[in-house]
Amino acid sequence: MAYSIFETEITVRPDDIDMNNHVHYSKYLDYILMARYDQMQKDYKMSMEEFIKRGYSWFASKVEIEYKRGLILSDKVIVKTQVNDYHGAQVFVNFWITKKETNKIAAEGKVTYTMVSASSGRPIRIPDDIIEKYSI
Amino acid sequence: MAYSIFETEITVRPDDIDMNNHVHYSKYLDYILMARYDQMQKDYKMSMEEFIKRGYSWFASKVEIEYKRGLILSDKVIVKTQVNDYHGAQVFVNFWITKKETNKIAAEGKVTYTMVSASSGRPIRIPDDIIEKYSI
Amino acid sequence: MAYSIFETEITVRPDDIDMNNHVHYSKYLDYILMARYDQMQKDYKMSMEEFIKRGYSWFASKVEIEYKRGLILSDKVIVKTQVNDYHGAQVFVNFWITKKETNKIAAEGKVTYTMVSASSGRPIRIPDDIIEKYSI
Amino acid sequence: MAYSIFETEITVRPDDIDMNNHVHYSKYLDYILMARYDQMQKDYKMSMEEFIKRGYSWFASKVEIEYKRGLILSDKVIVKTQVNDYHGAQVFVNFWITKKETNKIAAEGKVTYTMVSASSGRPIRIPDDIIEKYSI
Repeated sequence: MAYSIFETEITVRPDDIDMNNHVHYSKYLDYILMARYDQMQKDYKMSMEEFIKRGYSWFASKVEIEYKRGLILSDKVIVKTQVNDYHGAQVFVNFWITKKETNKIAAEGKVTYTMVSASSGRPIRIPDDIIEKYSI
Repeated sequence: MAYSIFETEITVRPDDIDMNNHVHYSKYLDYILMARYDQMQKDYKMSMEEFIKRGYSWFASKVEIEYKRGLILSDKVIVKTQVNDYHGAQVFVNFWITKKETNKIAAEGKVTYTMVSASSGRPIRIPDDIIEKYSI
Repeated sequence: MAYSIFETEITVRPDDIDMNNHVHYSKYLDYILMARYDQMQKDYKMSMEEFIKRGYSWFASKVEIEYKRGLILSDKVIVKTQVNDYHGAQVFVNFWITKKETNKIAAEGKVTYTMVSASSGRPIRIPDDIIEKYSI
Repeated sequence: MAYSIFETEITVRPDDIDMNNHVHYSKYLDYILMARYDQMQKDYKMSMEEFIKRGYSWFASKVEIEYKRGLILSDKVIVKTQVNDYHGAQVFVNFWITKKETNKIAAEGKVTYTMVSASSGRPIRIPDDIIEKYSI
C-alpha cells in the first residue's frame, strides 16, 4: 500500500538565487520544509502548531537529496512529498522537487523526521492517532 | 563625549553571495547583528544570554543603511559599531561595514534597538546598570 | 501627483523565522526585493530580465526601514510599494509590509535604487522610456 | 590509501539559528560549502577562482547528511572534509561537522560534486593535474 503524494507550489525568491544564477543548493531543504508545513495543515489536517500544543516537535534526522536540474528565478516550483513508512519515533518521507512548467524533476530524495518531546528533546514513539492521520 | 567604536571581523560565506556576485543586500543586516552579539560579549562584557537570563530581549526597531561599495566572496569584512545615545527603552547605534584590506566603507548607517520584556514583548526602560556597562 | 501603489503577497517560510519566533529582521529586505521583482513584471510590464537584456541592472543604494510589529509563520504578508520620485540614476520607492488579515503595518520605509550599467557597474541616468513605464 | 582530512572553523551567526534555537538544518549545507571553498584555497592550493579561470565550475549533485546533535549559537563549529574517491566528472567527499569544544559529531555524511564546463554546464572529466592536486 502506498500513501498519498501531496503538492505545494513554491515561489522562488531573488534571495534564493546564488552566484551561479540558480537556486542555491541548501534552499532546496528550505523548500522541502515549507512544503511539509503546508501539507501538514492542508492535507494531513494536523498543523505544526498542533504538534507543539501536544508537547511534540519534529526534527530532520537524515536527508538524502540528488540534484538533477538547476532551478532559476522564473521557475515555478512544485514540491511533492509522500510518507513512505513509520518506525518508532521516525517517519520516512520521499520528496520530488519539480519544475511546474515541464514537470521535470529538479531534485529528489528522502528525509527522515524524528518526533521528539518539546520539553526533553528526546525521541518519542509516534502516537497511533497521529500515525492514523498521516496514513492517507 | 563619544562612546567607543568596537570591531568584529566577518568571513563572507558562499551562501551570502547573490546573483550579482556580491554579498546580498539583506546579509549586511545579518553581519551587523553578528557584530553586535560578538561585541556584547567581547567588549561590553554582557552577552545576549545574560540579557535573556534577566528577562530582557532586544529587537531592531529601525535601520538606516547606505550601500557604498559591493562586497565580494574574497573580501575580509570588518563591522564597526558605536553606541551613539540612549533614550528610554532605546539605544541608537552607528555602524560602518568596511573592507579590511583597503579600509574602505562598503556600507554605513544606524540601527535603533529597543529593549523589551522577554515575557510581555513590551518596551522596558533600559536599567541604569546596563547603560553604565554600555557607556564605554 | 502620486504614483500607483502595487501589492505582492508573500508566503512566510519556516526558514524565515528566527530564534525569537518572528520573521528575521533581514528577511524583510528579501520580501521587499521579491515584491519589486514581482511588480516589475506584473504591474510595470518591464521585468528584471528585460533590464538585463538592455544592459542595465539595479542595486539598492539606501534602505530605511521601521519595524512596527513582528510577523509570525502563519501570517500572510502583503508588500506594497510605490515609486515616489526619480532623480538621475535613482528611483525612490516607498514600501509598506502589512499583515493581510488585519491590514496592520509590520514595517514601512523607503528604498533608493540606482540604475547601473551591467558591464561597468557605473550609474546610468534612467532612460525616459523606462521613467514613462514606471510613472503609472 | 586514504586522502587527508582538512578542517575549517565556522562561526555560527545569529541568522543561522531557527525557531527551535538551533542552527537551521539547511545551514549545515552552507557550512560544508564554506569549508570546501576555504580548503580548496588553504589546503589543496587551487581556489574556486582558479577553477573558474580555467572554465570549470562545480556543483553538488548529491548530498547525504545525518544530523546527530543540535548546534547552538555559542558553539564553535569545525567542518572536516576528505576526498574519498574520483570517477569521471565526479568527486566523492566525506564530511563531519563537529562541536569544537567536545569534538562530538553534530552531523556527518557525504557530498558528490560534479565538475562542469562553465560555458555549457555539461559534466567534464576531471583533468589529471587537478586529480593530482586533490590527491593529498
